[in-house]
Amino acid sequence: MLRQAGLRAARRPDDPEWEPRLYWTSARLDGPQNNDGMETKRPTVPAAEEILGGYFTALDHGFVSLVDYMGSDEDVERAARVSYGYGTRKVSATRGLVRYLRRHRHTTPSEMVEFKFHCAMPMFVARQWIRHRTASVNEYSGRYSLMPLLFYMPEREHFALQSTSNNQGRDAAASDEVYREAVQRWERLRADASDGYTWMVGEDVAREVARIDLPLSTYTQWYWKIDLHNLLHFLSLRADPHAQWEIQVFAEIIAGMVKRVAPLSYEAWIDYDLVGQPMSRGELAALSQLVEPSEDGIAARSGAGLNADQLKEAGLSGREVQELLAKLQLPPRPDFDLDLSKMRDAEEIARAMNEAVPSTSE
Amino acid sequence: MLRQAGLRAARRPDDPEWEPRLYWTSARLDGPQNNDGMETKRPTVPAAEEILGGYFTALDHGFVSLVDYMGSDEDVERAARVSYGYGTRKVSATRGLVRYLRRHRHTTPSEMVEFKFHCAMPMFVARQWIRHRTASVNEYSGRYSLMPLLFYMPEREHFALQSTSNNQGRDAAASDEVYREAVQRWERLRADASDGYTWMVGEDVAREVARIDLPLSTYTQWYWKIDLHNLLHFLSLRADPHAQWEIQVFAEIIAGMVKRVAPLSYEAWIDYDLVGQPMSRGELAALSQLVEPSEDGIAARSGAGLNADQLKEAGLSGREVQELLAKLQLPPRPDFDLDLSKMRDAEEIARAMNEAVPSTSE
Amino acid sequence: MLRQAGLRAARRPDDPEWEPRLYWTSARLDGPQNNDGMETKRPTVPAAEEILGGYFTALDHGFVSLVDYMGSDEDVERAARVSYGYGTRKVSATRGLVRYLRRHRHTTPSEMVEFKFHCAMPMFVARQWIRHRTASVNEYSGRYSLMPLLFYMPEREHFALQSTSNNQGRDAAASDEVYREAVQRWERLRADASDGYTWMVGEDVAREVARIDLPLSTYTQWYWKIDLHNLLHFLSLRADPHAQWEIQVFAEIIAGMVKRVAPLSYEAWIDYDLVGQPMSRGELAALSQLVEPSEDGIAARSGAGLNADQLKEAGLSGREVQELLAKLQLPPRPDFDLDLSKMRDAEEIARAMNEAVPSTSE
Amino acid sequence: MLRQAGLRAARRPDDPEWEPRLYWTSARLDGPQNNDGMETKRPTVPAAEEILGGYFTALDHGFVSLVDYMGSDEDVERAARVSYGYGTRKVSATRGLVRYLRRHRHTTPSEMVEFKFHCAMPMFVARQWIRHRTASVNEYSGRYSLMPLLFYMPEREHFALQSTSNNQGRDAAASDEVYREAVQRWERLRADASDGYTWMVGEDVAREVARIDLPLSTYTQWYWKIDLHNLLHFLSLRADPHAQWEIQVFAEIIAGMVKRVAPLSYEAWIDYDLVGQPMSRGELAALSQLVEPSEDGIAARSGAGLNADQLKEAGLSGREVQELLAKLQLPPRPDFDLDLSKMRDAEEIARAMNEAVPSTSE
Repeated sequence: MLRQAGLRAARRPDDPEWEPRLYWTSARLDGPQNNDGMETKRPTVPAAEEILGGYFTALDHGFVSLVDYMGSDEDVERAARVSYGYGTRKVSATRGLVRYLRRHRHTTPSEMVEFKFHCAMPMFVARQWIRHRTASVNEYSGRYSLMPLLFYMPEREHFALQSTSNNQGRDAAASDEVYREAVQRWERLRADASDGYTWMVGEDVAREVARIDLPLSTYTQWYWKIDLHNLLHFLSLRADPHAQWEIQVFAEIIAGMVKRVAPLSYEAWIDYDLVGQPMSRGELAALSQLVEPSEDGIAARSGAGLNADQLKEAGLSGREVQELLAKLQLPPRPDFDLDLSKMRDAEEIARAMNEAVPSTSE
Repeated sequence: MLRQAGLRAARRPDDPEWEPRLYWTSARLDGPQNNDGMETKRPTVPAAEEILGGYFTALDHGFVSLVDYMGSDEDVERAARVSYGYGTRKVSATRGLVRYLRRHRHTTPSEMVEFKFHCAMPMFVARQWIRHRTASVNEYSGRYSLMPLLFYMPEREHFALQSTSNNQGRDAAASDEVYREAVQRWERLRADASDGYTWMVGEDVAREVARIDLPLSTYTQWYWKIDLHNLLHFLSLRADPHAQWEIQVFAEIIAGMVKRVAPLSYEAWIDYDLVGQPMSRGELAALSQLVEPSEDGIAARSGAGLNADQLKEAGLSGREVQELLAKLQLPPRPDFDLDLSKMRDAEEIARAMNEAVPSTSE
Repeated sequence: MLRQAGLRAARRPDDPEWEPRLYWTSARLDGPQNNDGMETKRPTVPAAEEILGGYFTALDHGFVSLVDYMGSDEDVERAARVSYGYGTRKVSATRGLVRYLRRHRHTTPSEMVEFKFHCAMPMFVARQWIRHRTASVNEYSGRYSLMPLLFYMPEREHFALQSTSNNQGRDAAASDEVYREAVQRWERLRADASDGYTWMVGEDVAREVARIDLPLSTYTQWYWKIDLHNLLHFLSLRADPHAQWEIQVFAEIIAGMVKRVAPLSYEAWIDYDLVGQPMSRGELAALSQLVEPSEDGIAARSGAGLNADQLKEAGLSGREVQELLAKLQLPPRPDFDLDLSKMRDAEEIARAMNEAVPSTSE
Repeated sequence: MLRQAGLRAARRPDDPEWEPRLYWTSARLDGPQNNDGMETKRPTVPAAEEILGGYFTALDHGFVSLVDYMGSDEDVERAARVSYGYGTRKVSATRGLVRYLRRHRHTTPSEMVEFKFHCAMPMFVARQWIRHRTASVNEYSGRYSLMPLLFYMPEREHFALQSTSNNQGRDAAASDEVYREAVQRWERLRADASDGYTWMVGEDVAREVARIDLPLSTYTQWYWKIDLHNLLHFLSLRADPHAQWEIQVFAEIIAGMVKRVAPLSYEAWIDYDLVGQPMSRGELAALSQLVEPSEDGIAARSGAGLNADQLKEAGLSGREVQELLAKLQLPPRPDFDLDLSKMRDAEEIARAMNEAVPSTSE
């Protein structure tokens, strides 16, 4: 006979109201937000409604779901106009204004759009994510609830050696042999950690103690609410190739959701932030000696060049010269379209989580 | 012949797209958020929809409008449940949980509900309001736009003397004579300030300079976005009798809006925060000597009493004893229902603002 | 032959400037802040200077060190006085004002005092700690650096069963037998996790990948900077018996440091916050029927009592009645004096950390 | 016979402890922070100590004083090193690291340095300043205290017309005639406002009401505490030529103070932020076609040029092309050295403030 381990005290299964389902599932199924067709006078975005409440899988057991949003590009404009006063109103004007605001770092109007997500991610990813302080978070509590025993297993192609150029990144692929052994070690350790956790909660050890040897690869989940300005800042850092690959996976899905809620802001963010680059005074000094205005545009200054000494004089260290050259090797312009085939419904996701909660046989 | 003063440079009236209306009006009238009947899968609250986009007048020329909201009491519960895990779901359970959370200062789930307001208030009120930093603000810019020349004139009944007990408040009414002279002085000063401003912008003096002698009673306006947790903290301070009366007027309207968006959270806030009181260790020590558990409740401890010396020993200063006695004189339980008769539509409000923008005859 | 595993790329031991010591150690030893006797015109607190830069051990491998501070009680007063204007200045006045401010929740002056700490704690503690967003943090990076392999092992007396009353806490002690088995399991798992980590970094696997199976009991460290207001809020939550015991240990040390930097604010926090309690409107309604002002104090109202029905009428649920009775059972007034015998110097702490960084024999 | 108007209730001049001096003066004179020679183990910066507590005048009646600081460039490095782990320690290394961090927008270590200022500024400046939310503020309260009747009067050279290019700035100088009339109007209005205020507080009208017609040019004052990261962000916006000139005056003084506390961070901020520029993807695309790596540096690509159509294809609007050309016209590299001849002591400043508080003859 099976029972849910450790539920005796906290879940009171003798309580007639007790229901062994993850709350957020039942809420999503029975709650007011699921009757497709509530009318609202609030700004509403069809492309966002299409994915609202759907769960996009990330890594092996993670997900991101857009569960609510407030406002869109028009609300960025509206907030800006209250500052800038009178004006016209056409789609082209909205796009122009949104791009102008972003280009000139007028960020407060972007705070007027808000997103709420439900996400699950490995704890080492959660620890990077939570460093962004300008967001609201409610995380699944391992003190109160039993942890689903789900662990992140890196795939072969993302198992790599320490980078020699980027001191905190990864680089060349590791050998098959090393990968095989790593997987074996991971599997063994997680089996032991799961055993230990299940045994302890079965012995009624306090959950806050039982969990302390779960590995950082264990999945956790949270609700996360953040405004558009701070979300784009998060994405600039976490959709960047310097971020750990695993958090990039989440950032890319979220970027795809932003594209649906506020497409003009998203586009401006790509062009001015994500694939833009800051130029220092030294870099501008160098460039200003190499190009000049032409009759109807801009042109290379004939024969101009700067050697290492001249660049140093302009204030650029050797490393900065390399950085400048790298900036001028334009990266591809990424696009973050959601893959709708990865969208699951809440039921299915909740069932998987639920089944991973430890149970013991009596 | 009339013209809008100072609009030559900034508003480009020769631009065929130029429209001399306040932007937020036209947005509200023509924008996507006004077609009553967009369908959404987001949590939707009928009592909030009823007032959405309506303008509630405050003081003589001010207003508060709820222009958007995200979530409701159920979303507070949902966020809490992701932390607390499994559970049941009935209305009574939502109320109980929301009250439990507030009583025990578990405030993060309340951050999951968001409000957006459009407000106009005198600048001396705005200066108190803006001190609440955990909000997003876009204010009408006196550098870019012409200021509507609207000033707050205190009514007779709110014109009072400096309080002798509360060093920053007001107290007994001033005499009719003093009020009459005050009104005359205010009227004269505002006429002069309006003249000066209108003259300067007519001479094309930079608006950021022209405005510097507008009085603090001049109305400004902004969009203001804040989450439920921080909004209730704002209301606890600003709907309190110690706040300046003029900001209380705004706080009371906003409280009425909170009641419509999240009625259970509102009720819990009234009971546990607004008319609750913190008790110090000294106060608890005193009370614990005066009352005791009874068979099925709580009772006065027969014959118990504490004199001044004993209260001092319990750690209470003379001032704190007075404060304790004051806490035990229960204030009435306020209720902040919106007065729907004060609801105006955006058109009407915008017209009034627009007409107050200075114009000069040529 | 020994080598520091995985240091080949990142640490460049062939670099003549390379030094195999933890940076913060050498900084503390050689830096400008260690010459006892720099003169300053800044507010300086001798009791704080006495412990500045000392390391207080916490749990088995953790620590807290106060590495810098700005201001003291007098600066709280000064900030308040700029608001309240003119006044007198005696020590008794400072104490009275600081207590008045705290009692009435005038918290902004407390933001004028700042603390900087260097701390090491298990990751499950760090994950609770980091939820306090109004602080600045720089954490040791497992992407860049090798993790010291130090793990938290609960002692016998803190190994307990899940609480039946507090759904997220611990309660009765577990049996010796269960503890023995738990320790065995922990030791085995940590040996395996250490082996795995050391093997992977030895194979030059990217550190950000190698670390993903370190358990949550692994120690991390950070610099943490926060103002007095937000620090006291942190302490109210984390020095509270409902907090996980392990984070209470840290909170108590930090409280002892606050006592040295700003003793009057500390004392007021104890009296008004830590062992104070909020009273709801219902609780005040009940109490106001049981006590009354007396000639020179306060007294029980003769014969007064409230039974279950009457308490319900006053708005108190059964659970709230229990909570009220509990509040009136005054807890002891805690005091958080630092145990100076637990103070170590930076050198010693750094050496222990350094020795725990994995190394492999070739 | 003279008396301080309106002080009867609040200041209790019959109180033997009452002293009619601004608190912050007496604090600065008698407090512990003024005895030149307290010893501290905290990081101490001689160049900062030299100006600590001195008051730098700004505009006609304003000031900025650095009253406390925590940390310096070495503490930025120390915080970064705890993340980056092991390393070397030379002055050149500190500079290199500080510049690397700023160039790559690693901003969290900069949060580890803190500043506290005492400032006085016209209210229209204060209203812009307070929009920076990541700071702590205690402002002089016009509800509690009498306002000093000091008003900002623009000088001839800063009295200008509305800009035709920058919709919120000023541009060409206005005529002498207009300036003369403006001054007359300002003087008359301020005399009337002062009269009205003095009369009302003399009649004991509540101060919070009496002040409502003070003009925005009235000076207020506050304590302001902020970390280096957020301060540099403030300075990037407010020391910029697009900011209102009057707030630039304050930003420049503060920048000079930053230079004394953390000179390497200051220098990096100038080079990478203040006179740096963000480049969009379109701008990088254009530039990458015009320049190329050369053997030992970087060179113009011979004969390369982009006409209007090609620039449009690269994604640049006409306006953005103008912006790009403007970026390449390198602005001068500003330097913000403090003018020590403008440093006053607290006594002198406090006296001036004090004398401006209204008094009436009986």
